[in-house]
Amino acid sequence: MIKKILIANRGEIAVRIIRACRELGIQSVAAYSEADRESLHVLLADEDFCIGPASARLSYLNANALIQAAKATGADAIHPGYGFLSENAEFAHACRAAGLSFIGPEAAHIRMMGDKAKAREVMQKAGVPVVPGTEGAVEDLETLRAEAERIGYPLMVKAASGGGGRGMRVVESPDTLENAWQTARSEAKAAFGDDRVYLERRIVKPRHVEVQILADGHSNILTLGERDCSLQRRNQKVVEESPCPALTEAQRQGLYKAAADAARAVQYIGAGTIEFLLDSTGEFYFMEMNTRIQVEHPVTEMVTGIDLIQAQIRIAGGEALSLKQDEVRLNGHAIECRINAEDPAQNFRPAAGTVEALHLAGGFGVRNDFFIYQDYKVPHCYDSMLGKIIVWGETRSEALNRMKRVLDETIISGMKTNLEFQKHLIELEDFQSGDFHTGTLEARLDELILTMNQNSKGA
Amino acid sequence: MIKKILIANRGEIAVRIIRACRELGIQSVAAYSEADRESLHVLLADEDFCIGPASARLSYLNANALIQAAKATGADAIHPGYGFLSENAEFAHACRAAGLSFIGPEAAHIRMMGDKAKAREVMQKAGVPVVPGTEGAVEDLETLRAEAERIGYPLMVKAASGGGGRGMRVVESPDTLENAWQTARSEAKAAFGDDRVYLERRIVKPRHVEVQILADGHSNILTLGERDCSLQRRNQKVVEESPCPALTEAQRQGLYKAAADAARAVQYIGAGTIEFLLDSTGEFYFMEMNTRIQVEHPVTEMVTGIDLIQAQIRIAGGEALSLKQDEVRLNGHAIECRINAEDPAQNFRPAAGTVEALHLAGGFGVRNDFFIYQDYKVPHCYDSMLGKIIVWGETRSEALNRMKRVLDETIISGMKTNLEFQKHLIELEDFQSGDFHTGTLEARLDELILTMNQNSKGA
Repeated sequence: MIKKILIANRGEIAVRIIRACRELGIQSVAAYSEADRESLHVLLADEDFCIGPASARLSYLNANALIQAAKATGADAIHPGYGFLSENAEFAHACRAAGLSFIGPEAAHIRMMGDKAKAREVMQKAGVPVVPGTEGAVEDLETLRAEAERIGYPLMVKAASGGGGRGMRVVESPDTLENAWQTARSEAKAAFGDDRVYLERRIVKPRHVEVQILADGHSNILTLGERDCSLQRRNQKVVEESPCPALTEAQRQGLYKAAADAARAVQYIGAGTIEFLLDSTGEFYFMEMNTRIQVEHPVTEMVTGIDLIQAQIRIAGGEALSLKQDEVRLNGHAIECRINAEDPAQNFRPAAGTVEALHLAGGFGVRNDFFIYQDYKVPHCYDSMLGKIIVWGETRSEALNRMKRVLDETIISGMKTNLEFQKHLIELEDFQSGDFHTGTLEARLDELILTMNQNSKGA
Repeated sequence: MIKKILIANRGEIAVRIIRACRELGIQSVAAYSEADRESLHVLLADEDFCIGPASARLSYLNANALIQAAKATGADAIHPGYGFLSENAEFAHACRAAGLSFIGPEAAHIRMMGDKAKAREVMQKAGVPVVPGTEGAVEDLETLRAEAERIGYPLMVKAASGGGGRGMRVVESPDTLENAWQTARSEAKAAFGDDRVYLERRIVKPRHVEVQILADGHSNILTLGERDCSLQRRNQKVVEESPCPALTEAQRQGLYKAAADAARAVQYIGAGTIEFLLDSTGEFYFMEMNTRIQVEHPVTEMVTGIDLIQAQIRIAGGEALSLKQDEVRLNGHAIECRINAEDPAQNFRPAAGTVEALHLAGGFGVRNDFFIYQDYKVPHCYDSMLGKIIVWGETRSEALNRMKRVLDETIISGMKTNLEFQKHLIELEDFQSGDFHTGTLEARLDELILTMNQNSKGA
């Protein structure tokens, strides 16, 4: 049994982990940077230990300092949270080599899922659908035509060594295929010194749908419903919900089976998330697996009643899952809005400052996961997320109305935040109707900002 | 459909009702006294209307002023909350006579349940168990012996016109019966000029267990689980939970049936609570019915997922209940601690003051229903309750651990509160084990206060 956990993270997730420790009767140690001396997680933890200066490289990303802090404080486990070292296989390995429980999966699993080509291969072997594409580079016209036919349109030509959109072409139909291939090859050669390109089906207006899993060291795997995280800006999730409003029950069960198969195939242990792209016909494709707790885990907790951080800790302590799959009940609807210190009107420029007025809304179905408090000076050197508002309702409509009420009631002054933006976002017709995809927020962004600015001038 | 609700109350329940209105898209009007100008419900409501000075008699108990305020603001309904005029049949009648929806039951139901003898009679007719006793006064020795035999021991001799313990005797066995009867008669004669006494079974160490019901105007009745409210001080509930930790499933179903029978027998409409005494053998007896929402309603909301205030409003608007009894799921365990401005070390003397630091705990399974905010000056002229902390857990043990964590994390400074007292109370062995009754808190009070004082000195 784990007795003392060092938290190798900061912000709301550090607070979240401390709360779980408290409820389990486990001691907590806040490992903090100099910039976080006054941060809520440091105030709440049973013990604290300064691991270095503000720079993440010298503190929250400093594996040695973290392990030494755990040793110095007598912690027997490290929880990495999300971000920072949470998906760093070397850190997971180093913790264990130092005799500490790493609250996360095996280093081998982190490494496997971190290598996107390897992950795709593993999933394909496990029978999990992946985005149709060529296995390797397409070197000649004959292969190009045959493979394009097999994959179907629209498709993408992508540089094997590519990134940032270079060496990438969208192909809508066969008549532009050869030209796109040639251009992509030249561009890839020029940009990366490597003209190898491959083909992949282009998923049009996909939804981002992910399945939460928990797997223990006793061969038990649970799928805990799905989350729809399609509302994104620059690939950052902004609003998440569970369940996904676009799935039929059959599609949902297919998704859960794929996720369980994936976890079983690799003998995964711990909490994990299998991310899928869902196309408009209801087909889904493996995107990636995250081998850590996610920011949006609370929506799953709200619909399942299962405390995922406590579950992570129990699993790391060797316990078996206490529920069986058929005992998992998915109940009602949960929505999460990320609340950031940023200025949406200035291209979401990160903000910082001292919290002046603070009123977090209460009442039925409302959960606040924040790390700020009155008079707290939010440092400018980290992620801009101040916390998350999560609501639950019997139905999606009740949850939406509740979120609107809560956003209206919440007051955070002293710095720019995206509260107003979130209010407008959840009122967006596409979101209200449930008919949205990963491109919706970007497509509606100018309009949203405009309406928001007009309303704030009118107010 | 109701469009605008005047809230004839203050404090946390006024805030609670405004939140429900918001989520239903209904306008809210805060009717407030001069002492409540800066109160949270006034700040949150869509409109506000001052109804008089601080004195409750001249404001929150002033039926005319409230009805006039509703008329002046164009409200079409009045929500009375709990306390104040919530169980005043004349007020309910006057609202309706003025063309306003009263969000509560018929005046006749309020009146019937307000008359304890009448309520007992109605329940008996409906087949609901009542505390065994004589129907009227016991005037002769023969009746005394026969009735005592029928009722069983221990029993109470009680003055028909009695109160305050005078003319009351506990009888443990037949050999003290006659003497107790004679003494009680003389005492009653001397105290009340009326020597009539009656007999009633004495329920030893009873638990206070109550069943929440919802009934619409379409003959649908739902029972929504039970609440155990046995932890009381001077007949005031201090901690409440759902489910009751002492019931077998058969006892539980018996209780629900009795509650539904009671509501059906009187054709009740609205939210209501049937309170029972549960004895140590599992027998239960009708105590009274409350024809309003109760302070402790959130624990029921947490285990059923049903928003009771929204349900009250819908029922008053003529809607039928959307769920059937077999669709009601009782899920997990919820506990509520009432947080009061009072000094437990000074015999719970009510306190008041300005809120200095305020940190309400967040995270999974935590609900805060408060009406205070930073820098708010809590007036001294009303009830001392600042709000309620409610937690949910998959099991009672998880809920208990969560409550402890939340009480530890919560900060309210600027006045004395019972936060520390509640921490010690929930740690009490009797409460942890679930083995407690309505006398437990009073019996443990000195010990609790002593431990609390010692710990605070040690800290």
